[in-house]
Amino acid sequence: MKGSFGSDNFSGALPAVLKALEEASRGHRHSYGDDDLTAAAVSEFKRIFGADIEVFFVYNGTGANVLGISAFADSYHAIICPETAHVNTDECGAVEKHTGCKLLTVPTPAGKLAPADIRARALGFGNQHHVQPRIVSVSQCTELGTAYSADELGAICETAHSLGMFVHVDGARIANALAYAGVAPAAMTREAGVDVLSFGGTKNGMLFGEAVIFFRRPPKEPRYIRKQMMQLHSKSRFIAAQFLAVLRDDLWLKSAGHANSMARRLADAVASIPGARITRQVQGNEVFAILPADVIAPLQEECFFYVWDETASEVRWVCSFDTDEEDIEEFAGKLREKLRIKN
Amino acid sequence: MKGSFGSDNFSGALPAVLKALEEASRGHRHSYGDDDLTAAAVSEFKRIFGADIEVFFVYNGTGANVLGISAFADSYHAIICPETAHVNTDECGAVEKHTGCKLLTVPTPAGKLAPADIRARALGFGNQHHVQPRIVSVSQCTELGTAYSADELGAICETAHSLGMFVHVDGARIANALAYAGVAPAAMTREAGVDVLSFGGTKNGMLFGEAVIFFRRPPKEPRYIRKQMMQLHSKSRFIAAQFLAVLRDDLWLKSAGHANSMARRLADAVASIPGARITRQVQGNEVFAILPADVIAPLQEECFFYVWDETASEVRWVCSFDTDEEDIEEFAGKLREKLRIKN
Amino acid sequence: MKGSFGSDNFSGALPAVLKALEEASRGHRHSYGDDDLTAAAVSEFKRIFGADIEVFFVYNGTGANVLGISAFADSYHAIICPETAHVNTDECGAVEKHTGCKLLTVPTPAGKLAPADIRARALGFGNQHHVQPRIVSVSQCTELGTAYSADELGAICETAHSLGMFVHVDGARIANALAYAGVAPAAMTREAGVDVLSFGGTKNGMLFGEAVIFFRRPPKEPRYIRKQMMQLHSKSRFIAAQFLAVLRDDLWLKSAGHANSMARRLADAVASIPGARITRQVQGNEVFAILPADVIAPLQEECFFYVWDETASEVRWVCSFDTDEEDIEEFAGKLREKLRIKN
Amino acid sequence: MKGSFGSDNFSGALPAVLKALEEASRGHRHSYGDDDLTAAAVSEFKRIFGADIEVFFVYNGTGANVLGISAFADSYHAIICPETAHVNTDECGAVEKHTGCKLLTVPTPAGKLAPADIRARALGFGNQHHVQPRIVSVSQCTELGTAYSADELGAICETAHSLGMFVHVDGARIANALAYAGVAPAAMTREAGVDVLSFGGTKNGMLFGEAVIFFRRPPKEPRYIRKQMMQLHSKSRFIAAQFLAVLRDDLWLKSAGHANSMARRLADAVASIPGARITRQVQGNEVFAILPADVIAPLQEECFFYVWDETASEVRWVCSFDTDEEDIEEFAGKLREKLRIKN
Repeated sequence: MKGSFGSDNFSGALPAVLKALEEASRGHRHSYGDDDLTAAAVSEFKRIFGADIEVFFVYNGTGANVLGISAFADSYHAIICPETAHVNTDECGAVEKHTGCKLLTVPTPAGKLAPADIRARALGFGNQHHVQPRIVSVSQCTELGTAYSADELGAICETAHSLGMFVHVDGARIANALAYAGVAPAAMTREAGVDVLSFGGTKNGMLFGEAVIFFRRPPKEPRYIRKQMMQLHSKSRFIAAQFLAVLRDDLWLKSAGHANSMARRLADAVASIPGARITRQVQGNEVFAILPADVIAPLQEECFFYVWDETASEVRWVCSFDTDEEDIEEFAGKLREKLRIKN
Repeated sequence: MKGSFGSDNFSGALPAVLKALEEASRGHRHSYGDDDLTAAAVSEFKRIFGADIEVFFVYNGTGANVLGISAFADSYHAIICPETAHVNTDECGAVEKHTGCKLLTVPTPAGKLAPADIRARALGFGNQHHVQPRIVSVSQCTELGTAYSADELGAICETAHSLGMFVHVDGARIANALAYAGVAPAAMTREAGVDVLSFGGTKNGMLFGEAVIFFRRPPKEPRYIRKQMMQLHSKSRFIAAQFLAVLRDDLWLKSAGHANSMARRLADAVASIPGARITRQVQGNEVFAILPADVIAPLQEECFFYVWDETASEVRWVCSFDTDEEDIEEFAGKLREKLRIKN
Repeated sequence: MKGSFGSDNFSGALPAVLKALEEASRGHRHSYGDDDLTAAAVSEFKRIFGADIEVFFVYNGTGANVLGISAFADSYHAIICPETAHVNTDECGAVEKHTGCKLLTVPTPAGKLAPADIRARALGFGNQHHVQPRIVSVSQCTELGTAYSADELGAICETAHSLGMFVHVDGARIANALAYAGVAPAAMTREAGVDVLSFGGTKNGMLFGEAVIFFRRPPKEPRYIRKQMMQLHSKSRFIAAQFLAVLRDDLWLKSAGHANSMARRLADAVASIPGARITRQVQGNEVFAILPADVIAPLQEECFFYVWDETASEVRWVCSFDTDEEDIEEFAGKLREKLRIKN
Repeated sequence: MKGSFGSDNFSGALPAVLKALEEASRGHRHSYGDDDLTAAAVSEFKRIFGADIEVFFVYNGTGANVLGISAFADSYHAIICPETAHVNTDECGAVEKHTGCKLLTVPTPAGKLAPADIRARALGFGNQHHVQPRIVSVSQCTELGTAYSADELGAICETAHSLGMFVHVDGARIANALAYAGVAPAAMTREAGVDVLSFGGTKNGMLFGEAVIFFRRPPKEPRYIRKQMMQLHSKSRFIAAQFLAVLRDDLWLKSAGHANSMARRLADAVASIPGARITRQVQGNEVFAILPADVIAPLQEECFFYVWDETASEVRWVCSFDTDEEDIEEFAGKLREKLRIKN
């Protein structure tokens, strides 16, 4: 495949990231985070998000989410999240296994939780038979390609905090949300009241590696949790070097902004094709559309993507840092072709 | 630091590995292991170890050990291992947390478990109050730089199997053991009766990535365990490409053999220095020595290494794929200097 | 309180049970189940349910449910159950904590799961990102006072088994369901295809103690799970003696039948009172009704019961082995009074 | 069996306990601890141990230990305890499974931990690769029939606290230790610095039930842990009534004192028999002796007891509240007989 719309983790790596890895590979460095590159990458995060944060590098998004949540939750706690949340649907029960917590899920048409959803689910405080609501977890961008505004996140955090709860943001695509909103990273996170953020790297041009950013000191000690949950990398330099490469000069925001604009362009192209219908707001790098059921498989064969909802014949296309206009046009062309053949 | 003797994870990465990553980074590929590079790397492992194995890539050694053990163990089982085992001392309780199992540890002077140790610890079968011994876990090379012979491993496996138990090998340094023994990989593992192997990559020139190799089909399904324990990499190509680079043309064995020979050379150099004493057999890439307590800190400042046993004034030096003769000579020179200054 | 309608665990103990405990208390007996009374009680269960079952005594209903489920489930499995299931709402996340499994809950108007519900939720088989559906758990009677017929349970089991899943029945009130249906215990359970049953004792006149009955040999060993999950009683005789007392001469079925008939009578009495409305089918020992919101608290003060659904002003009344007609009439009288006062 | 020396859980129940259960069985009471008897029993504990404690009733000793430890420990913590500790050897790994913690065990000739043992094991603070020592757990009486003095416990607590650790006492036989020492319950526990105590009931004449007493407010909330770990009894009155019966008029201390004196008497009787040798200090209700290997089985057939250490031919005899002088004399007579036959 040259390009695809399967997922942003179908893409490879940014050239700057590869170059940084090559440079970082020379010589000996202390392991497990006690090296200059790790320190420098943490400094970059502090420059962006504020000096009083704590940053932990981990391997992947599931690890980031579980670390962020674990640091605030005991096994009798519960996590309120949208039904569509990655932590609920795509992590093979990692949160339940690792924390013991129950997920209290909320049907959310656009993938976005509202303060009223939290209040409706945050019940049973003090009742010993009930799990105790403790964390609100939202994805930014959501799994449906939508993005919360800083104000929306602020309202979620205010509601959660007023109930004695904490807010975790699954930011596997936080860069896309920031590029869309055009607000400062800190405004969208710490200033909105977010307590802990999973900061995505892999989907945005890195080979591997995510960061967990604590804006509030959690009751447990993340460093031991990270090690015990098998997310501490010995050659930490190789995660750090990648983050240095993408954080410097806003490469992370530029890459995400590019993916977003490709998604926008794809949506526009598809919107003009009779027989296809864009189903959700395109705010990040994902496009959802309903296609006639019989064109999906032939189109997938030309260029892979996932069916999102089989019964609705709805598909998902994801753009990446390396999606280009040619990809879009070629794909739109093929879609047109399949639909024409059909008619 | 140019070189160090801190650990083999203080080293960077093999040029061949970096080149492979660069090549693998182009274009789109299916994620989560459904790509051509992952298939090719698995094929390489099958070529080396036999066609009827199952291979799972994971991020790190702790992940590999926990996956291998989890697939065979229920929470009421126990794991027999040396007191010095990495799973016991250096994984922050990951095995207990993830599996719920108890570790039954055995003091082992040379880091090596003997069949008699297993029989002495494998008690309480059928007694509902006792954890049920289920896994024997040994490290190859051991944490004390020693290596089991294929026959020794065979005897361990025979004993374990006769008791209804399974054998896990923590092979973070399996390459060093194979290079030392000069036997075929399959002879040292599957043919000796090993049930599951953690196959190390990171310590032997990779940026990240290990493999879990099942020689016997376990009662649980490793693919779900791997995902749930946060060890499934989305861009699987980037682990696979590294393994392809090191497995082809025996680069992994050559690199380990080089590290071993550097360790041998270091031990020889030190053995001739009055005031230093080599304390353990040098069979892999690690050298242990007792030094006068007051030369340790000054020497560490010149070139970092760890104190292994503070009370005995015993230190550990680890050689890597990139340790060279110059490193050895310079270090031996400095040691001589510190000892001379002292006298 | 003489009587109440709070819960069947507000009741005390059957005289026959107390007498049995007194007799069992004399002399020394082996502990942990290795005694004659335990053997005799197990024999009683085999007489009732068939010789090839396995029976494990535990302390409470949550323990019974978790033991039954644990024996079939690995942490990456999922359990399909009604949203209203006790395992979901009233066990403080015990299932998630102990098994690591995710609960896939289904909204069920009458508390009863249908085969179609199972099929709609049993998705993602073979997809490594998804928990693997493994257990269907239903309550008999349900938490809404309804009961499955043997045929309905049979259809659930057939559906579950056809999907490679197992069926757990939370039978905290299995006696009430059997008394209602008038079918043989084996017909409602093993012959319907049930794999494991939590058999309630406490709610039906015992001081403490439940039994887990395996109709199918599970992949894990319940005896070690029971001990490890802290549900093995040392003085097993004291659970066994109680079961002997209630199983002999069908006391358990008579007690439950009595509670059912009291519930029926209460429902009939309430149905004739203007201003109160029975909301659910009365098939066991529970009655649900909607009352004017402002009579609930005054009525609770006279005789305690729980509000089931605050927003609907729906209350729950539970009858026990020791509820008598006088309780019913007095309560109905008070309800009439409160409603009259109101008007 | 009339009497035996198998274990104190081979005994039945105190008549006062049975009477209390009978009385408690009448009428309806709120469940899950919200009843007058539970309140009264908690008051009794406060009278004995001080008003500012928190008391939680649970089912059994393993449950008590795990609840007490869980409330202070996160999964990356470690528990220092003697090798012979019940939590280590006889709970089928319940602590590891429930808390995820590692046990750091210490060989202790007399079953008693010393401050130096704690300091020798409490290592690795701040090292992310190591479990973090957090709890010291000791049994009082120990599993070897010895008892700590209040001063010895005080020294343990002081050492633990100076290291930032907490002290849990497994007091399945705390009554025997108190009866032996003749000091006030508070002096032996809270005033010595103990943070949490498992207070035994079952081994001292109850049918079931133990209490967990927190002298210090733990970081987690025990009420939710208790429920989630399946140790909350619905008919709480039936545990409370038993505790009321034994706590009033010091019946618990008298019963334990009686068992102790029977053990003392048994030891004295055996000491005078040639061929038998008492091996450990008799401070509670347990007697350990070495017998010729070939008299053990014949003697067990007459009156059951356990072999403690097969290789040493060491046996354990336990006395209970209902052991009487006749039991002792009969048993000593049989022992004499077997030894005479032998010679």
